[in-house]
Amino acid sequence: MHFMQSLKDAWRRNDSLVCVGLDPEPGRLPASIAGDADAIFAFCRDIVDATADLVCAYKPQIAHFAAQRAEDALERLIAHIHDRHPGVPVILDAKRGDIGSTARHYASEAFDRYKADAVTLNPYLGHDSIAPFLERADKGVILLCRTSNPGGKDFQALDCGGEPLYLRVAETIAREWNGNGNCALVTGATWPEELGKVRAVVGDMPLLVPGIGAQGGDLEAALRHGLTAAGDGLMISSSRAILYASGTSDFAQAARKATDELRQAVNRHRG
Amino acid sequence: MHFMQSLKDAWRRNDSLVCVGLDPEPGRLPASIAGDADAIFAFCRDIVDATADLVCAYKPQIAHFAAQRAEDALERLIAHIHDRHPGVPVILDAKRGDIGSTARHYASEAFDRYKADAVTLNPYLGHDSIAPFLERADKGVILLCRTSNPGGKDFQALDCGGEPLYLRVAETIAREWNGNGNCALVTGATWPEELGKVRAVVGDMPLLVPGIGAQGGDLEAALRHGLTAAGDGLMISSSRAILYASGTSDFAQAARKATDELRQAVNRHRG
Repeated sequence: MHFMQSLKDAWRRNDSLVCVGLDPEPGRLPASIAGDADAIFAFCRDIVDATADLVCAYKPQIAHFAAQRAEDALERLIAHIHDRHPGVPVILDAKRGDIGSTARHYASEAFDRYKADAVTLNPYLGHDSIAPFLERADKGVILLCRTSNPGGKDFQALDCGGEPLYLRVAETIAREWNGNGNCALVTGATWPEELGKVRAVVGDMPLLVPGIGAQGGDLEAALRHGLTAAGDGLMISSSRAILYASGTSDFAQAARKATDELRQAVNRHRG
Repeated sequence: MHFMQSLKDAWRRNDSLVCVGLDPEPGRLPASIAGDADAIFAFCRDIVDATADLVCAYKPQIAHFAAQRAEDALERLIAHIHDRHPGVPVILDAKRGDIGSTARHYASEAFDRYKADAVTLNPYLGHDSIAPFLERADKGVILLCRTSNPGGKDFQALDCGGEPLYLRVAETIAREWNGNGNCALVTGATWPEELGKVRAVVGDMPLLVPGIGAQGGDLEAALRHGLTAAGDGLMISSSRAILYASGTSDFAQAARKATDELRQAVNRHRG
């Protein structure tokens, strides 16, 4: 199944624009699970199993696994999602970027090893660094555009011939890199007006929107500026507010409740 | 030992500006080693042991290991370099970059798990994405500036208020991010004049220079534009031309010969 089709199907089937970020923090796992030798996997699996009918995608963040030598848990987690919740696409949040010959290995890491449906990438190295991903037409290629963090402005907001760098990035990707129709962009909820400027130049291209919750982004403004005419086009990403909604043994049910509250809050603005 | 001091000591002790990139390609390993269950480790180890007195650093590229599920081999390889060749710093070529809370996990991956002395990073997400690395004052933080690949121009060369983005990146890092004196930049040999412009704004900051060899960079021009007044300041990186100098069982000796030829070619231009 193509990532873009899976995403659209999941938007509709689950009536949800919510993407749950799977960022396991060893120090924040509930006591009921922290002693498990396979705690990272068990924690994420339980979150997934409690929320799969409420989301449009999952987004495991690879550094949270790599810092713990838990690549194997990440492989099994993605296999679990594909097996038990087919139709919910998995975005590997890796933000890779390297010259073409090395980019092929990163594409293999994301798509062949981990079997992700999409991957986040950094566009700073230009087209040949992304080409090995773009040519996998069934896979999603989600490029950093205007990121949600405070430092996002340091270079992304620089004026490049009358418009900010992030808009040049958005235009280049929409016009030149999206021949297979498999591109999407990362645009933070912390900059809703800039999100709207991106929307204006990329048409209906999906936007992955982090920054709600712990980072303080304005959900209503992000939706107002980012929704397409069809009332979708967004993956509203939330990680910590869902994963750590409860620090005790009811974490999975608390995660379900937090996911559904976000889903409904989003849907109230979709009209 | 601080990375910067290790690098300077290795420049002097081995009279070498050569950095050997360890990019093992499964399809290119010599037949004599390809059947080994631990072939990736054995191949890199033999290259290292044959060249350690001729280099200023090693630079394993992590995607080449991750695509093969060979994280364990990468850990052992770096431990082997530290153990057998102390004083030769190891740069983990990972080109990571993410928001601050995730960047901490990437810093842990590079420095705590792999025990690298330095890591390559992508600056597109700005200061807070790099801060967890910068504050490790004993570690090197090597930021992409003007990359060696054809797509490097796509965004890095955009005019930002009268100067190209890559120079804005270089200036920002030199002025604002280098408080601990642990920054370096990646500037490709394929753009020697641009390398010279970077040198002009960063003083004696070390530059990691890929692009010689397979990528066609001009060594003499890169040295002319990039050497400091002291005749050093560069890490001239070569991977494929050294690793695959011979495809047979004499690969390590062929790698030694290729490394020494590059070392001498560089030194002829150091005056």
